[in-house]
Amino acid sequence: MTVFAKILAGEIPCHRVYEDEHVLAFLDVAPLSPGHVLLIPKEARPTLDELSDEAGAALGRVLPRLCRAVCAATGTSAYNVLQNNGVDAHQAVMHVHFHIIPRIGDRGLGLDWSAQALDDDAERLAGAIAASVDP
Amino acid sequence: MTVFAKILAGEIPCHRVYEDEHVLAFLDVAPLSPGHVLLIPKEARPTLDELSDEAGAALGRVLPRLCRAVCAATGTSAYNVLQNNGVDAHQAVMHVHFHIIPRIGDRGLGLDWSAQALDDDAERLAGAIAASVDP
Repeated sequence: MTVFAKILAGEIPCHRVYEDEHVLAFLDVAPLSPGHVLLIPKEARPTLDELSDEAGAALGRVLPRLCRAVCAATGTSAYNVLQNNGVDAHQAVMHVHFHIIPRIGDRGLGLDWSAQALDDDAERLAGAIAASVDP
Repeated sequence: MTVFAKILAGEIPCHRVYEDEHVLAFLDVAPLSPGHVLLIPKEARPTLDELSDEAGAALGRVLPRLCRAVCAATGTSAYNVLQNNGVDAHQAVMHVHFHIIPRIGDRGLGLDWSAQALDDDAERLAGAIAASVDP
């Protein structure tokens, strides 16, 4: 049972900021900046690719409202929304969670952006992804 | 008019991987790793806090399926979903977009995670965010 499942079960307290039938949002206990919020589905799945369409829609539906509330309460308009999947991608708790991370002065999410140009394989790769999307 | 609005209008080509009534997904032209996909709403808003609930739900609904497809086509199970808001938070195109960034070997999203412990202000801050969420 993950720490988030325990929070959902009421076994561990949290600083709750929003809850509905499908999702819960609360302050991250190890924030990158003040107002760093976690949004989680009540549906327990380790990674986003395993989540149901319905749980995904419930998360997406509340994100704009939650982001507005974080901006209003912290007085910033710059923020990152981040969702990590897999230990190799910096996931620490194996229950889907979206971070909402305000940028406040020098605090917030640090990104290392090492982009390259699209190569000759792009056409094939786009086709392979498109063909893999469940109807 | 942003480059993404021009892609939606068909004025600029893209490597499309998914499209429905509300969203479009295509390969990022400057990928952090092979299979780096952008998911955008057809509703043109600069930042997530300005997006409608309905557009947010449409994005969230398709994310699990798109992530599955990116994993299947690239052969990885580790990836980051990132959405940046504001120039100070690394946003480059002022039309909401979610990055799906596979972690493939040493390529992918680099994160600098400078977390601190929650301080004494947490209770007040959680209350302020909760009170700011539109009903």
